Amino acid sequence: MSVMVTMKVVGLGMVALTLSLELLGWFFNRLRPRRTLNEVLFFPSKVACVEHIFTPTSPRVCFCSLPHGAETSFSRFLRRILSASSSLDLCVFSFSNNDLSRAVLLLHSKGVTIRVLTDKDYSAITGSQIGVLRKAGICVRCDAASVHMHHKFALLDNRLLITGSLNWTLTAVQSNMENILITEEPDLVKPFIKEFHRIWMLNDPARNHQNQKPVSDDIH
Amino acid sequence: MSVMVTMKVVGLGMVALTLSLELLGWFFNRLRPRRTLNEVLFFPSKVACVEHIFTPTSPRVCFCSLPHGAETSFSRFLRRILSASSSLDLCVFSFSNNDLSRAVLLLHSKGVTIRVLTDKDYSAITGSQIGVLRKAGICVRCDAASVHMHHKFALLDNRLLITGSLNWTLTAVQSNMENILITEEPDLVKPFIKEFHRIWMLNDPARNHQNQKPVSDDIH
Repeated sequence: MSVMVTMKVVGLGMVALTLSLELLGWFFNRLRPRRTLNEVLFFPSKVACVEHIFTPTSPRVCFCSLPHGAETSFSRFLRRILSASSSLDLCVFSFSNNDLSRAVLLLHSKGVTIRVLTDKDYSAITGSQIGVLRKAGICVRCDAASVHMHHKFALLDNRLLITGSLNWTLTAVQSNMENILITEEPDLVKPFIKEFHRIWMLNDPARNHQNQKPVSDDIH
Repeated sequence: MSVMVTMKVVGLGMVALTLSLELLGWFFNRLRPRRTLNEVLFFPSKVACVEHIFTPTSPRVCFCSLPHGAETSFSRFLRRILSASSSLDLCVFSFSNNDLSRAVLLLHSKGVTIRVLTDKDYSAITGSQIGVLRKAGICVRCDAASVHMHHKFALLDNRLLITGSLNWTLTAVQSNMENILITEEPDLVKPFIKEFHRIWMLNDPARNHQNQKPVSDDIH
């Protein structure tokens, strides 16, 4: 009887231990902080060919004189932009970089919803890609309410934020010391989504037309 | 005897349960994601008096004509800068804001180790505070290696990053649409610490003197 009781107690103890470990494992998996995407890129970027990023499945070989196949800050930046699958909201002070313009046009052709907010003064300077985007049918609004609309951020699929000091120009990418943060951290992404919406609505041509203050453009 | 055995089993079960709960609580506290500071500020900031931020314990009342006691993006930004307790590393393209200069000088007077990296061209423009910082004995290095040293970030105590589109000027704070991110997220902070060190060393006057390329200044 005494042996039986001991066995029962040990058995019960093992069951309790097994259940505890099981429960512990469940809690561990549930509470372990999920890895949130956080990345920083610094510029100037090494100059390299980015043709393979635009046509990854094409067998066509690029014969340009730039180095090929190099992983650079700019190639990573470009890949991130091209990863948008449903929407891309851009809020950029100046936009004259041809490769970035090509990326936005490619997304547009794939059906990604694109909205572009930019600074009124800088939208018309030589080399600006804003006119090219408009001609392609992308919805652009120009802010004229502030001295400068100096943001340089992008929101992809309402979940990924790309922001920093870098204007979307060739000089910024290839010649300046600049930074870009790429993050999915909701505490950082959500305020930018809210601010984009605020500035977008602030520059709604219909609203400004009502107020007889045409401070923005919205051309599809 | 049967009652005794039952009591022993129940007792053992309760001990096992208590220990499991204790262990679970410990794991819970250990694994629960610690709240990392993440904050976003948008500008232009409302214009308000910031005297109380510089002299919080002083009974002196400010008689300036600006609104008093208002919480603004700029007052939050200023408070963050003033929260540095051991070190402040600044990497700013242009620095002409008097209040921000006053904050840096106040930290310097309290013994906080300050290093300032700035753009060579913009360090000498009218209104620049770089000369004021140098005169106070703060270590300043000017980057001349790139077309523009266009960063606008600050590292506090090697743990807090403040970065964004905002240059440290009055126009940026009061007139432009700008953003600032404030984060303790190590994946974002660490690359900036590394980059600051790289640019700081790159513009070491001793190193440049050896190479006979005096591209930077380091005046205490």
